[in-house]
Amino acid sequence: MKNLPSRAKKIRLFLSDVDGVLTDAGMYYSEEGDELKKFSTYDGGGFLLLKLVGIQTGILTSENTALVERRARKLRLDHVLQGYWDKTGAFHRLLETLGLTPDQVAYIGDDINDLPILRQVGIAAVVPDHCLPADFQPHYITTRKGGSGAVRDFAEWLLRLRGEYELALERYFEFIQKQHERS
Amino acid sequence: MKNLPSRAKKIRLFLSDVDGVLTDAGMYYSEEGDELKKFSTYDGGGFLLLKLVGIQTGILTSENTALVERRARKLRLDHVLQGYWDKTGAFHRLLETLGLTPDQVAYIGDDINDLPILRQVGIAAVVPDHCLPADFQPHYITTRKGGSGAVRDFAEWLLRLRGEYELALERYFEFIQKQHERS
Amino acid sequence: MKNLPSRAKKIRLFLSDVDGVLTDAGMYYSEEGDELKKFSTYDGGGFLLLKLVGIQTGILTSENTALVERRARKLRLDHVLQGYWDKTGAFHRLLETLGLTPDQVAYIGDDINDLPILRQVGIAAVVPDHCLPADFQPHYITTRKGGSGAVRDFAEWLLRLRGEYELALERYFEFIQKQHERS
Amino acid sequence: MKNLPSRAKKIRLFLSDVDGVLTDAGMYYSEEGDELKKFSTYDGGGFLLLKLVGIQTGILTSENTALVERRARKLRLDHVLQGYWDKTGAFHRLLETLGLTPDQVAYIGDDINDLPILRQVGIAAVVPDHCLPADFQPHYITTRKGGSGAVRDFAEWLLRLRGEYELALERYFEFIQKQHERS
Repeated sequence: MKNLPSRAKKIRLFLSDVDGVLTDAGMYYSEEGDELKKFSTYDGGGFLLLKLVGIQTGILTSENTALVERRARKLRLDHVLQGYWDKTGAFHRLLETLGLTPDQVAYIGDDINDLPILRQVGIAAVVPDHCLPADFQPHYITTRKGGSGAVRDFAEWLLRLRGEYELALERYFEFIQKQHERS
Repeated sequence: MKNLPSRAKKIRLFLSDVDGVLTDAGMYYSEEGDELKKFSTYDGGGFLLLKLVGIQTGILTSENTALVERRARKLRLDHVLQGYWDKTGAFHRLLETLGLTPDQVAYIGDDINDLPILRQVGIAAVVPDHCLPADFQPHYITTRKGGSGAVRDFAEWLLRLRGEYELALERYFEFIQKQHERS
Repeated sequence: MKNLPSRAKKIRLFLSDVDGVLTDAGMYYSEEGDELKKFSTYDGGGFLLLKLVGIQTGILTSENTALVERRARKLRLDHVLQGYWDKTGAFHRLLETLGLTPDQVAYIGDDINDLPILRQVGIAAVVPDHCLPADFQPHYITTRKGGSGAVRDFAEWLLRLRGEYELALERYFEFIQKQHERS
Repeated sequence: MKNLPSRAKKIRLFLSDVDGVLTDAGMYYSEEGDELKKFSTYDGGGFLLLKLVGIQTGILTSENTALVERRARKLRLDHVLQGYWDKTGAFHRLLETLGLTPDQVAYIGDDINDLPILRQVGIAAVVPDHCLPADFQPHYITTRKGGSGAVRDFAEWLLRLRGEYELALERYFEFIQKQHERS
């Protein structure tokens, strides 16, 4: 793992799974027919810090719900890929469109349908409670759990590896100021 | 417990309790009259892996709610037994219908109404926070809690005991590919 | 605390606070105006086991919500006292009505408005995450948290102290059988 | 940190962030379009104890939701500042209106948009799972997590530092009695 900083510097796209990563894998079913998922406010900050240093952000999930669409819009993600049984195929089509190679991607997942992607990307992260086979070795295991800021944790770890955490923070406060002046 | 692998190989039916096993035992009551339960996306993968090696799946609960019906449909379970005060009686009637004996069943429960079934089945598992009498000895205590993937954990443990985890994984990726081609 | 078994044997009434004991102290607010609380299915079993050995059950809370009313009905509690700022006064009026004395009551609470009652009852329990002054010494601190079966835990501890856990379990299985025959 | 008691005695205003402090940073999204946050009943007691010794209370958040407005009303907070991208600016305008200086403020936060305020106030607290840069040194890290009574914990710590916890408790029981007589 000596080459982690050089791997990190190549990253142009940050992709995350949804259930178990942006959420705690919980699926709340209501008697009246509604469904809920629990996200973390911390992950919003993670995606924003990444965008402020020029890294594209997105989600990739096999599920297809209106609530994830709304959450993604709130997070102002660049790419929202929902409803893909074949996540690996969708992943490759996205890279082709963007003209990127797998080593330019950081991906965080938690389950076996993420495995083919995790094995190909430049930086592969998993949540601590993942359901992947024991022999898979990720580049990073987040300290925060899914739905409790795992993406924020991974994003900050990646930014520090790139030596860009302080830069991202600086741009964050400029961004806040601009948002304020606009409103 | 030397005979665990031979016990595991006899299993044809995998049954789970609902509250406290597929959920965290939480019952969310709303002021407007709605009720919610929290399930885990990981358990869906557990039931699917079992089905892919030919083991039937089902749930057995004394409660009777529309939300569990919907969750069960999403999970494509073979048997959904809701509303049985006498879970043991319902269990035996199901076995009779299917022409199975208790030693061909793996069951996971968490409370005293599961006790008579747990004492009879071939493989009996409980969640770590169970409410069973201290003198009951299950074959397996899951490492994941109820509602956080206890069924997935038990299913993978059972598949590994049977030497079928890799086979199930292989069939999973074929299944994903077929779902993709169909859609 | 040598006299705990003799204190336990005097109990005729088991009372519980609601928020932080039957729930995890969480108050879920929805943007549409709804409110939720999270209860545990395990506590239902606790109240039932107590009733089966002849101990009355009830809740006492300063809040007043329809959802607690519904939860209490589901639990078939004997006494539901909601909306009492002065919980101590409500407690004494209930005892007067029932012809009981404080040493015949087991009470479980978690916050400062429970303190005067906890200081008077025969058996006083608290949840591990309580907000009571450090100098208060309860008879029992539950191992399960509020909303995760704290009442079930306290109920079973009390039944074991009275030497009635096995009796309660026996009557539970008779009760299940009767419910089945009735349905 | 020798001067903590003298810092504590100067406090006239207690301000809290919302997401991650009054909540567990969770954002529940529903398929039907609703959103939920989880608060703790314990924090209500914290704000009340502070008010009973004459400390003003308030919240300051960049988000703007009706559910936080309702929660704040229930908590009878003195100041509810929602929807401020520039929290630091809103903080200074509030101080100006009230004729207070930053050393008269106790503030609890959890994320980078709280950092400029945390660096200026008399007493700065954070939750244990905060997302602040590692080099920031708060005066207090709460033992309770956000959404599980972090504000109550900080409020009681502050009252004890001021030597006013017992006074606050005494006034609490007088307050309860008055509420009862009024109803």
